[in-house]
Amino acid sequence: MSVEDFRRYGKEMIDWIADYHEKVDRYPVLSQVKPGEIEASLPDAAPVQGEDFEAILRDVDEKILPGVTHWQSPHFHAYFPANTSGPAILGDLLSAGLGVQGMLWSTSPACTEVETRVLDWLADLLGLPDRYRSTASGGGVIQDTASSAILCALLAARERDSGLRTNREGCGGSQVAYCSTQTHSSLEKAMGIAGLGRANLRQIEVDEHFALDAGKLAEQIRADKAAGLRPIFACATLGTTSSNALDPIADIGRICAAEGLWFHVDAAMSGTAVICPEYHYLHDGIEYTDSYSFNPHKWMFTNFDCSCFWVADRAALINALSILPEYLLNEATASGAVFDYRDWQVPLGRRFRALKLWFVLRYYGVEGLQYHIRRHIELTRQLAEWIEADEQFEIVAPAPFNLVCFRHRGSDELNKRILDELNDSGDLFLTHTKLNDLFVLRLCIGQSRTELEHVERAWRLITETARWLRTDGR
Amino acid sequence: MSVEDFRRYGKEMIDWIADYHEKVDRYPVLSQVKPGEIEASLPDAAPVQGEDFEAILRDVDEKILPGVTHWQSPHFHAYFPANTSGPAILGDLLSAGLGVQGMLWSTSPACTEVETRVLDWLADLLGLPDRYRSTASGGGVIQDTASSAILCALLAARERDSGLRTNREGCGGSQVAYCSTQTHSSLEKAMGIAGLGRANLRQIEVDEHFALDAGKLAEQIRADKAAGLRPIFACATLGTTSSNALDPIADIGRICAAEGLWFHVDAAMSGTAVICPEYHYLHDGIEYTDSYSFNPHKWMFTNFDCSCFWVADRAALINALSILPEYLLNEATASGAVFDYRDWQVPLGRRFRALKLWFVLRYYGVEGLQYHIRRHIELTRQLAEWIEADEQFEIVAPAPFNLVCFRHRGSDELNKRILDELNDSGDLFLTHTKLNDLFVLRLCIGQSRTELEHVERAWRLITETARWLRTDGR
Repeated sequence: MSVEDFRRYGKEMIDWIADYHEKVDRYPVLSQVKPGEIEASLPDAAPVQGEDFEAILRDVDEKILPGVTHWQSPHFHAYFPANTSGPAILGDLLSAGLGVQGMLWSTSPACTEVETRVLDWLADLLGLPDRYRSTASGGGVIQDTASSAILCALLAARERDSGLRTNREGCGGSQVAYCSTQTHSSLEKAMGIAGLGRANLRQIEVDEHFALDAGKLAEQIRADKAAGLRPIFACATLGTTSSNALDPIADIGRICAAEGLWFHVDAAMSGTAVICPEYHYLHDGIEYTDSYSFNPHKWMFTNFDCSCFWVADRAALINALSILPEYLLNEATASGAVFDYRDWQVPLGRRFRALKLWFVLRYYGVEGLQYHIRRHIELTRQLAEWIEADEQFEIVAPAPFNLVCFRHRGSDELNKRILDELNDSGDLFLTHTKLNDLFVLRLCIGQSRTELEHVERAWRLITETARWLRTDGR
Repeated sequence: MSVEDFRRYGKEMIDWIADYHEKVDRYPVLSQVKPGEIEASLPDAAPVQGEDFEAILRDVDEKILPGVTHWQSPHFHAYFPANTSGPAILGDLLSAGLGVQGMLWSTSPACTEVETRVLDWLADLLGLPDRYRSTASGGGVIQDTASSAILCALLAARERDSGLRTNREGCGGSQVAYCSTQTHSSLEKAMGIAGLGRANLRQIEVDEHFALDAGKLAEQIRADKAAGLRPIFACATLGTTSSNALDPIADIGRICAAEGLWFHVDAAMSGTAVICPEYHYLHDGIEYTDSYSFNPHKWMFTNFDCSCFWVADRAALINALSILPEYLLNEATASGAVFDYRDWQVPLGRRFRALKLWFVLRYYGVEGLQYHIRRHIELTRQLAEWIEADEQFEIVAPAPFNLVCFRHRGSDELNKRILDELNDSGDLFLTHTKLNDLFVLRLCIGQSRTELEHVERAWRLITETARWLRTDGR
């Protein structure tokens, strides 16, 4: 593609995206296609001759869009959000345009150093302990997801415990890790990947607010030690996926410190809230932690993927993941004066993801981000009030930030019908979970474009649908 | 950012990138900054108030660009390329603009189905066995890197061998894997990550062309079995990182089939060449393989990250990586009629990376891609001729595609000085390796903009530098 064509088509694409964002609220938020429909609309083989860019763009409209679930729609309240913003998209565009691969410091020093600096900024905003700074013993790195961050934390814990023996000789089956029944499934997956065994993850029971019961954790660790096992790792969650529960960091931290466990905090969703000083109290006990992650690609207007991961002792992480073949040797690495981020992650190569995060932080500023976060929390509080006031519905878990877990007081069956009806209509997209064995609706407010009018509409649709389904007697 | 501002700044960013690509050959290709220089140019804290987009763009020019190593420069001949193109950048931009997260089929059916279809197209172009098609027992998925692909292949092998016991209970230290001394270091790293132990990777000796010696592989497998170990996995490389060596797929494949090993082919770099039919012979024996990967983000004009990974038996991969919590349950998944790609990879979330690959395949067409690949191979052949004809230099490994490994007939010290002098000048960027214990220069030709004039210039600079260093007596 000539540079002139790139200018022309690039500007068309920018307009296409702008138009899309202007009308994204008008699409059915959950794609209405059936399995195989999109594939069937595409040819069986790659084109032999090149095609016009206009023809490709036309197919985006006609063939791709019907198969898109509109994560950027203000009617998207499913899962957790993956919100985005203009500066994030343009930062990512710049990254694609530069096309650098930042596996080593020397393969693009800016790719490493902007990331290091911006993650130091965020460590300040989150009130993480000084040890987490790159200027002290720690440092931050961008991972693709919190799943990869938790895997890296687990590997660092595994190697710290074994003195690198497991890396060399393989696992022996005696190392044990701890979380709650509400911890994200990525930790169980990571236990399998890391060769530790999913059965060696102890999923500790939770209290009435779905937060890990620290007393039960201490008991389990004692029992495992008595059985000759090696407790190596515990994870606390700030904002669980199911219900946004807050594990007691200080209580868990004291136990980890006493028993010598690596302590990781997964704040993938709700870490974003902590950049508002009024939520710093949630980090009570953070001084006990060894690693921490949160995802700007969920709620901080930075498009996927961008999961920030910090370690207090970077040597533990690097020791677990470093390997240095001849063809990657270079002076800067040999000097020890630089970070080579390939040693902080599973893959070797890496994009310049720090650009989009840097763009977002600079364009919004800290106050701008705080404004939008508080706005979402306030909208959620408002919705929770309406639910509380409606005797047909009940809230089933605390809603500290931007997620409400609620249900109609009728049967699980009715709640499931409400969910399916709404999602099939395309007007709204919610998801569900199970809490205390009940089928529960989850409504999360975190899209960049979600305003009061959208939340009012969502609540109206939910109550109307419930009324209609009950009247209809189905 | 308002939609109107997005239009304005987006078009500015497109022009910025177009201007950058027009003048990228004029920047020092290897960044000349010292460790810490970029960080020192950035403030100590995130801005409290938001800033103008213009101010951010100005800092890109003044603070970021000096720290960029220009991977898209026609003078970049280091490592392997990570080339890009207009359609790839715009496909990636569209992905950022849509902002979908394709962890499940239902979270954006098009994100899954375009990927499945495009990888079936590529399986056809590469002449992979029918089993690899999504319509048969296999299928393809986009990973971030070949490192992640090889880890997934290894995990699938580990679980197939143990009947999922290792996933559940952890590794026991008796499973062994095989590669050559020239295999990419990511396999050794993956052995550590997977809890199998780096010491349980057997790095088999290579022949005079740096290709794995299949006879020695068979011997080692027999010895390990006799010692009570469990050989589970072997990797052949099509185009090793060090010298672009080609392991004998058919010979290794027959051994793997007889001994029951999972057989993975890592064609990260040179798989791209095989979309030209004249290289299909390199896949002789491909019917023995269980998995295959190659990176369009290296040499196929698709910007990083985009590593294509296929398995012949998708159930083996999914069994190793699947986990299904309540909050991800949905009708499409329950029906079994769809692929949920989160079960084909380490992370949960995923971007719509198939768009850029689809854009590239459509815009260039198969013939367009073949044209550019053949052009790079021809330029490399031309350079190899010049080196052969110069009695001061020698070629030290076969150069089948787009990499030449060569050295001045002088000392290692002289070769290292030539390398440093050229890289420090900013005029050219080469890297090195060691072959037969000699310090060897690697020059790879794979950038989208590299033409004959650039290769002529590179060779002139190399010979002039060598002459000058020898005359100078240093």
